[in-house]
Amino acid sequence: MTAPEPADLTALPSPSLVIDEARLDSNIAAMAAFAARAGLALRPHVKTHKSVEIARRQRAAGAAGITVATISEAEVFAAAGFTDIFIAYPLWLDADKTARLRRLLEAMPDGAGPLLIGVDSVEGAARAAHAAAGLLDRLAVLVEVDSGHHRSGVPAAQAGPVAAAATLAGLDVAGVFTFPGHSYTPDGRRAAATDEARELSAALVSLAGAGVTARIVSGGSTPSVEFADATVLTEIRPGVYVFRDAQQWELGMSSADDIALTVRATVAARHDGHLIADAGSKVLGADRGSYSTGFGRLLDHPDARVCALSEHHATITGIDLPAGSRISVVPNHVCTAVNLADDYLVVRNGAVVARWPVDARGANT
Amino acid sequence: MTAPEPADLTALPSPSLVIDEARLDSNIAAMAAFAARAGLALRPHVKTHKSVEIARRQRAAGAAGITVATISEAEVFAAAGFTDIFIAYPLWLDADKTARLRRLLEAMPDGAGPLLIGVDSVEGAARAAHAAAGLLDRLAVLVEVDSGHHRSGVPAAQAGPVAAAATLAGLDVAGVFTFPGHSYTPDGRRAAATDEARELSAALVSLAGAGVTARIVSGGSTPSVEFADATVLTEIRPGVYVFRDAQQWELGMSSADDIALTVRATVAARHDGHLIADAGSKVLGADRGSYSTGFGRLLDHPDARVCALSEHHATITGIDLPAGSRISVVPNHVCTAVNLADDYLVVRNGAVVARWPVDARGANT
Repeated sequence: MTAPEPADLTALPSPSLVIDEARLDSNIAAMAAFAARAGLALRPHVKTHKSVEIARRQRAAGAAGITVATISEAEVFAAAGFTDIFIAYPLWLDADKTARLRRLLEAMPDGAGPLLIGVDSVEGAARAAHAAAGLLDRLAVLVEVDSGHHRSGVPAAQAGPVAAAATLAGLDVAGVFTFPGHSYTPDGRRAAATDEARELSAALVSLAGAGVTARIVSGGSTPSVEFADATVLTEIRPGVYVFRDAQQWELGMSSADDIALTVRATVAARHDGHLIADAGSKVLGADRGSYSTGFGRLLDHPDARVCALSEHHATITGIDLPAGSRISVVPNHVCTAVNLADDYLVVRNGAVVARWPVDARGANT
Repeated sequence: MTAPEPADLTALPSPSLVIDEARLDSNIAAMAAFAARAGLALRPHVKTHKSVEIARRQRAAGAAGITVATISEAEVFAAAGFTDIFIAYPLWLDADKTARLRRLLEAMPDGAGPLLIGVDSVEGAARAAHAAAGLLDRLAVLVEVDSGHHRSGVPAAQAGPVAAAATLAGLDVAGVFTFPGHSYTPDGRRAAATDEARELSAALVSLAGAGVTARIVSGGSTPSVEFADATVLTEIRPGVYVFRDAQQWELGMSSADDIALTVRATVAARHDGHLIADAGSKVLGADRGSYSTGFGRLLDHPDARVCALSEHHATITGIDLPAGSRISVVPNHVCTAVNLADDYLVVRNGAVVARWPVDARGANT
C-alpha cells in the first residue's frame, strides 16, 4: 500500500491530503505571536493534525504544552517526547483507561508534567484519584465548565464542589477549563468569548469558595480566540488554526489564502450540470454545520460547492472543468478529514518535499 | 497502540467496534439465500466492511465475486486471493492509477478474472484501453448508467455510444451497471428498483443498437435489492446488509435484532437532560440523511437519540443512565464508521472471540 514518493504534484495518488508548508508555518507563527502579545500561554489542540512533526513546530514557535482529546493521543505524543500534555476531556476511568493512564504516569520522565486531565463530576474526580493512587504527584485535574456550548462541563457554580471533592480525594486541582464551541456560528465568535470569560470568572469564584486557587484558566476555540479575555484566562487551546478549513472560511475568519491543507482530487466524470470528483466522505468527512453552504469548497474556485457527498463521489456544482482536472478541495472540518488519512504530502514551492505520518490517526480511545 | 486482547466485554477499550458474529453470519446467509432464490448472482460490495475475513464468509455463502470502490481496495482483496473483482467506479486512469491497474492485471493468476471496471464516458473508455495496453485480455468494462440517483453514470441512451467507443478501443464490454442510490429514502425503495430495471433495460437496447451484447447487468443497493427485477438484472451488489445500521433501521428495513455492528461506548458524563458518550464523529462518522432522526441510535434503547456529535462527544437524549454505563451505539452509516477503525472485536455468546483487522481501512485511492 506504500505509494512511491511522487516527484511532483501531478503524480500524487488521488485523492491525497496535501499540506502547503509555507502556509502551515505562517499559521503557526501568527497564533504564537498573537498569544505572546495577549500574554496568554498557547496549548494547541493537536487532535486537529495528530502529527508529531507539526506539534514540534508548534512547540518550537513557543507553545507551552499540547492539548489532546484521548488517552491514546496522549500515548502517541508522550512517546514522541512531549511532557506537558492536557487531556481535555472528562475521562471516565474504567479498567482499560485506568491501566493506560497509570502507564502514562509511570513513564513520565523526571521533571515532566504533571499530566493534566479534565473532570466534570464528583464521581469522575473520585475515580481519577483512585486510578492514580500512588502516582498522584504526577497528575493534576482541571474542572470542566460549561460556558454555553452545553456539551460536557458543569455549570460554573458547581465547579467549586467538584474541585473540593477532587482535593479531598487527594487530587491536585490545577484550575478550570472550558470549550466555547458555540463560537462556531456566524456572528457568534465575540459573544462566545464573552460567555467564556464570564463563566470561567464565576467558576473561579466558586473554586475560591471551596478553598481552591486556580493556576490554570484555560479556554479558547479557534473562532473565539482573538476575543479571549486575558484578564481571566491564562491559556488558550485553539486547534484548527494550523490548517483552517471551509468552516472557518465560511465563518469569515480565514481567507482562501490562509488554508494550509487541501485534498488534491481529480474530476473523474463530467455530467450535465455537475462534476464528480474522487474525494468522498471517506476522505473529506461528512461534517456539515448548519451555516455551511455545502460539504466542502474548492480552493481555487470560490463559487464552486460540493453539494452532495457519497463515500467516493463529491458532486460539485458552480464550476465546469474537463474530466481529469486536478482540484484542491477544502474539507468542511479539517480535524475529521485528517483522521481519515494515514499520511500527509507536504508541498513547498510547488514540489512534494516530505511525507508526514498522521501519527495519532485512529487514536480515539 | 495494540491493546491486550480483552477477555470479556467489560474490559474492551472504549469506544470499540463490535461485531455480533451470529447476526453477521445470519445476514450473510439471508442475502445469499435471497439471491439464489431470485436467480441473481451476488457480488457484495466490500467497501462496507473492508474485511478479508468477512468477504471470505460471503464467498463461502455463495457470492460470485466482490465489488470494490477503489483500486486500493482491489489491491487489498486481490492480495488476499480474490479473483473476481469489480471496481464499480468510473476510474479516471492517471499515471498513478494506470501503473497500479497494470500491476493488478499483471499479478492476476491464470484463469482469474477478468478484472471489471466502470466507465461512464468515451474519454474514460479510451484512457482505460490505453492504460491496459498489452493486457486487454485481463480487463473488461461495465458502462455505468444513471438510473435516477444523478451522481455518476450516463443516461441510458448514451450507454451504446460509450460501449461502442470502448469496443472500438479494444476493450471487452461485459455489460452495464447502476447504483440506485435514491433508494435511501422512506418509501423510495420499490420505486428505485423500478427505475433501475427500466433504465438498465433501456441501456441494453442502446448497447444492442451499438452491436454490443451484455453478459452482466448489475444493480442493487441494500434498500432496493428485495425488489430487484431478475428479468433484467443478472447480479446485485448490496453492501450494508452484512451489518445494517441506523439508516436501514430508520428506513424500516432492519429491526434492531438484525444489526450486527455497534460501537461499544461509555457514558462519560451525565448532565441536565442529556448524556455524553465517548464515541464522537471520529468513531461514528458524521453522516446524517435527510430522513435521519439524529446522528445515531442506541441498540437497546429505541427512544434514545444521538442528537449532537462532536469529535469525541455524542450528546444523547431520550434516555437516562448512570455515568460509566456501557452502551451500544448504532452508527447512521456503517460504511463510514468502519473506515475510521483499525479493527473489529468479534463477540459470540457474550464473549470476545476474535479481533479482525479492517484490512482496507483508508484504502480510498
